[in-house]
Amino acid sequence: MKIAVVAPSCSLRPEAAEAAAAIVRARGDAELMIHPQCFLSHGHFAGPDEARLAALREVMGDEGVDAVWFARGGYGSNRIAEAAARDLPGAARSKSYLGYSDSGFLLAAFDKAGLSVAHGPMVQDMMRPGGDAAIHRALNWLTRRDPETLEPGLRPGQRAMAFNLTVLSNLLGTAIEPDFSDAELLIEDVAEHEYRIDRAMFHLTGSPAIRLVDSLRMGRMSEIPENDPVFGSDAESIVKDWCKRAGITFGGAADIGHDAANRVVPFNNLSN
Amino acid sequence: MKIAVVAPSCSLRPEAAEAAAAIVRARGDAELMIHPQCFLSHGHFAGPDEARLAALREVMGDEGVDAVWFARGGYGSNRIAEAAARDLPGAARSKSYLGYSDSGFLLAAFDKAGLSVAHGPMVQDMMRPGGDAAIHRALNWLTRRDPETLEPGLRPGQRAMAFNLTVLSNLLGTAIEPDFSDAELLIEDVAEHEYRIDRAMFHLTGSPAIRLVDSLRMGRMSEIPENDPVFGSDAESIVKDWCKRAGITFGGAADIGHDAANRVVPFNNLSN
Repeated sequence: MKIAVVAPSCSLRPEAAEAAAAIVRARGDAELMIHPQCFLSHGHFAGPDEARLAALREVMGDEGVDAVWFARGGYGSNRIAEAAARDLPGAARSKSYLGYSDSGFLLAAFDKAGLSVAHGPMVQDMMRPGGDAAIHRALNWLTRRDPETLEPGLRPGQRAMAFNLTVLSNLLGTAIEPDFSDAELLIEDVAEHEYRIDRAMFHLTGSPAIRLVDSLRMGRMSEIPENDPVFGSDAESIVKDWCKRAGITFGGAADIGHDAANRVVPFNNLSN
Repeated sequence: MKIAVVAPSCSLRPEAAEAAAAIVRARGDAELMIHPQCFLSHGHFAGPDEARLAALREVMGDEGVDAVWFARGGYGSNRIAEAAARDLPGAARSKSYLGYSDSGFLLAAFDKAGLSVAHGPMVQDMMRPGGDAAIHRALNWLTRRDPETLEPGLRPGQRAMAFNLTVLSNLLGTAIEPDFSDAELLIEDVAEHEYRIDRAMFHLTGSPAIRLVDSLRMGRMSEIPENDPVFGSDAESIVKDWCKRAGITFGGAADIGHDAANRVVPFNNLSN
């Protein structure tokens, strides 16, 4: 199968690209096409909006591409997500899309547009400690839908969705907000203060659209900066408290996060 | 007139309270009632939710109180805003409310409930360089509606609203979202990275409710942390760009921000 890599947010580090490509070559079960746009640089972004959108639309419309794998997160895919999901060519509907973190803006827009998306490791995860496991997990999902790659709490027949909490908070109410009805919603976050987690959970659970979820599970909230004074409540207590206030069932922990252990969450999980 | 001070977010510093009280005594045109709740401490907050809500509801319902002045921002008023605006006693409707930053959650909920709110200096601003000017400005507004205190771009007969951008982004879609239709919307922010300003502007201008504003003006975006790499666009360009994308008229600069120069923006400006 042919997997195309594009960077709708920030630039991919060449050493991550090379290491991931070496793993793919050694496996021999896929062809990795790393789009040169991945290495563009334009301020914060992997090239201007137009270049990032063009590369993404190019691989989406390519009949020969079986999967689009987002290179990395950072910030910026929201700037092109609405346009990327507009007037989709048929070829875009026959492939799958994998990423997380800032790529959640695309997962949302594409899920809303009826495409097959999954929350899971990206190419740049190669740079994490033990990152090769994340790369293999992504490839095992993309090439053969290996059930071992899946977040272990997913229930067969139950639609699931997974997002970075801050990204999800920032797409609510916009044109790319997907349908959360009856989905199991998994969230994770990284490097946000507890007061920001609390504020984002207030926003998230205050949304009537989010209150339609089946339940909510919490992935890892990592690298939380110190609060001064001590916040007084940890991330899990915060998430449970807001779920309770909003009448949302809290379903426990989820095995996702900004780390090499990040498991795969296909949004359209009905066939698993 | 009698001005009650409560702290719906974080604790008020005693030295700020004392200095502000001394100014009020010297002026002789108001009585300042600093509620003891202002000095409570409970983790991040000026007391537990229940204590902050009780103090706020107490002064709102007090017939003898002419104005409620929020002590300071920080974080936490969102946790009690919906409850604070529920089943309002008549006395709550005959007074005015002043604050900004995190207090924007209350400005929103109270404006939605039909109360008279204004965005402007708080007691803790006493601690800023030149903070006594902010205190006098607040008092000149509260005691005699001095037009000199007003944000200079406000137009007579034009409804205006002012918010911290991040706070506003986090209340969109919740039960405390007010009606933005045909209002001039002023925003400001502090200590947010440019990528966060960009993301919040995406969220803000992506809201159909926000797209109903008459126009948007930008106050000061201060203490922006350095971006690595350089973001590539400054705050004003970011704000103008998102306004343009969303079809919102950008009205230029606003004289509000997290500083002693922060001018007053009454939401119900129709009589000015």
